[in-house]
Amino acid sequence: MSAAPSSCVDLGWHMGAPSLAIDPDALSPARMRARFSGMRATGPTVNVWRGPGPASTLPYALRDDIDALAFVPLGAAAPMRWDASLAANHTDGIVVLHRGRIVYEHFDGPLQPHRPHVCMSVTKSLVGTLAAAEMVAGRIDPDAPVPVYVPELGASAWAEATVRQVMDMTTALHYDEDYGRADAEVWTYLRAAAQLPGMPAPAGSPVGVRDFLRTVRASGAHGEGFAYKTVNTEVLGWILCKVTGLPLERLVEERLWTPMGAEQDAFFVVDPRGHAGAGGAFSGALRDMARFGETMRCDGFFNGRQVVPEAAVADIRLGASPAHFARAGYALLPGWSYRHMWWMTHNAHGAYCARGIHGQNLYIDPKAEMVIARFASHPKAASANTDPTTLPAYQALAQHLLACP
Amino acid sequence: MSAAPSSCVDLGWHMGAPSLAIDPDALSPARMRARFSGMRATGPTVNVWRGPGPASTLPYALRDDIDALAFVPLGAAAPMRWDASLAANHTDGIVVLHRGRIVYEHFDGPLQPHRPHVCMSVTKSLVGTLAAAEMVAGRIDPDAPVPVYVPELGASAWAEATVRQVMDMTTALHYDEDYGRADAEVWTYLRAAAQLPGMPAPAGSPVGVRDFLRTVRASGAHGEGFAYKTVNTEVLGWILCKVTGLPLERLVEERLWTPMGAEQDAFFVVDPRGHAGAGGAFSGALRDMARFGETMRCDGFFNGRQVVPEAAVADIRLGASPAHFARAGYALLPGWSYRHMWWMTHNAHGAYCARGIHGQNLYIDPKAEMVIARFASHPKAASANTDPTTLPAYQALAQHLLACP
Repeated sequence: MSAAPSSCVDLGWHMGAPSLAIDPDALSPARMRARFSGMRATGPTVNVWRGPGPASTLPYALRDDIDALAFVPLGAAAPMRWDASLAANHTDGIVVLHRGRIVYEHFDGPLQPHRPHVCMSVTKSLVGTLAAAEMVAGRIDPDAPVPVYVPELGASAWAEATVRQVMDMTTALHYDEDYGRADAEVWTYLRAAAQLPGMPAPAGSPVGVRDFLRTVRASGAHGEGFAYKTVNTEVLGWILCKVTGLPLERLVEERLWTPMGAEQDAFFVVDPRGHAGAGGAFSGALRDMARFGETMRCDGFFNGRQVVPEAAVADIRLGASPAHFARAGYALLPGWSYRHMWWMTHNAHGAYCARGIHGQNLYIDPKAEMVIARFASHPKAASANTDPTTLPAYQALAQHLLACP
Repeated sequence: MSAAPSSCVDLGWHMGAPSLAIDPDALSPARMRARFSGMRATGPTVNVWRGPGPASTLPYALRDDIDALAFVPLGAAAPMRWDASLAANHTDGIVVLHRGRIVYEHFDGPLQPHRPHVCMSVTKSLVGTLAAAEMVAGRIDPDAPVPVYVPELGASAWAEATVRQVMDMTTALHYDEDYGRADAEVWTYLRAAAQLPGMPAPAGSPVGVRDFLRTVRASGAHGEGFAYKTVNTEVLGWILCKVTGLPLERLVEERLWTPMGAEQDAFFVVDPRGHAGAGGAFSGALRDMARFGETMRCDGFFNGRQVVPEAAVADIRLGASPAHFARAGYALLPGWSYRHMWWMTHNAHGAYCARGIHGQNLYIDPKAEMVIARFASHPKAASANTDPTTLPAYQALAQHLLACP
């Protein structure tokens, strides 16, 4: 999620263990694309059940005026058409809801409507939403230090960090997520999570994400600036499990996927100790991601029930400090902030989004009554590679829907 | 499936890779039970989609006269009650259909109605049914030698074997499935399938089941006797993939699970090359196994459509040679035969069944209009451990349903 292109694709960190060692073609873009729509085949997973009933209704009201919509990509001079952008940014699937109805839908490559696609760090926003719900219910105190909930982290970087600092990623960690540095701590994290095929953890190194978290040390004072570090979400996931007594996959199942009437089962990739990865391991079907986005747009109310507490959505929409955010140096995201694991645009529409590497997006525009769920397989990881042809396209579409409802 | 208790549990062959190496408790009966209801967490899998529509109806007509039903376990003197048998043989779940209605249902331990359980060699009967359907459609010639469909096996044990010999397991293979022998070929097979955690394949040994199949050599003349060897089903699965151009998980999805209106997604564990294990790697929900059994009982017609060709079911019900079967020495299964990967009782009811180690059963009694689907986690693998308290119980229940319909 840094502005610099990441080398993680070349290093194959998101690749499952089985195929990489025996298949020299496993890192090709085509294979990566297939893998993103089939993460169950890469390693151990835990299921998220869609529930017993019929799927909630997402009525169709397809529009034929979207493909020709023009926007100017960030940093470009010439406009681009919406339909051309889909190939340009390696879209696997995109669905647009306007006032709860599907106005646009497109699938490409191996992705099909019923097939879950990896969400990468969009996962974080699911976790942040679950945590916000616990917070407004009074079961998580945002001002409490992390060890109140997870004593196992009492000697770690999070010993003095508050839950809110974790949720807003303003912790100061001696932890480098720059995939370009061979000795960055992210590699130890990914090895502990068994996400580096052919690169098992050396003897004596942490096994499982939680063991790794205990080894992370602080670096400076918490609360002074935004620094996007996936391990914060792993900590938040652990807090949630402690507070609720449920594993993360059950939380998503019981509190989001089943009540919102998902049409497909979803799943998490798990680490060697069987824990669902809170930072980026979720795969769901595209329309179900749209359902979740619509739930957020409707203040948590969807499928005839209050799926997410209204106060939790309101708390997310408050946003956080753009000044804190600015220190992270995201040139393409001026004036944004990061709140409860959501990216807040602070634009005139109050838009906010969930974002994952290689182009995963869940974009909510309250004023335009628009939700966009998008899966992609951009060969390069960093969102900076897809932002130029997605963010202005989303904003142009929002304007269009406002002007021509 | 041999009469002797197998040591495969102690050797952990059905255990997924992640947990065993780091968890000394991974082989405990409780953990095995949890694992059987959560095989996705053990390694790479491929999904079998239930389809887009509502699940087919399985109406309830529960009876209260079954728990007290008495039967005499094989080799025992004293009778046992039906309900007592469930604990005795480590039942995780059992559902009984009579004339298509659920007359009995019981879940225990971690198994829930929506959660797929490993089917072990019940998988074989799914594969055999799909092959029988191809056979009656004229796309597989049962008298053709295997290499007509899989040229890759032209130098293997199956070079001279016919498809029928594969389907009825009358091939003569230099392949020992006795888990008690450390140098039995089954270990090479399981290592190639990556089903032996902590025991990777040595350098130069086969990777993936298909590579292993090419190394199996013949031992004697095919067609002279029944010998239960799982590799035959792997060959049959490969033939099916060649003939249809589809991977096994798509075949089960498109030809069985979706048309019969399954209520849950199912899945296969896959080998290092991503191939679904035809011999025992399928997991499905209990009621969906019952739906499949009911499909067979109704001559392939279920959910308002001909799911399996009527002629395929009829061909399976012909049975095979009890004389061939007798040579395998199953003391508890006198007069039985093995046909198209189904176990035929040749009893007065024409009952036949699918059977998997640790107590997995799908039992179809046409005369009693009864189908029993059963999942279990017996600590010992061989069916000889569960047959004494299951087979006579099923027969007693069939008699009871005939007498008191």
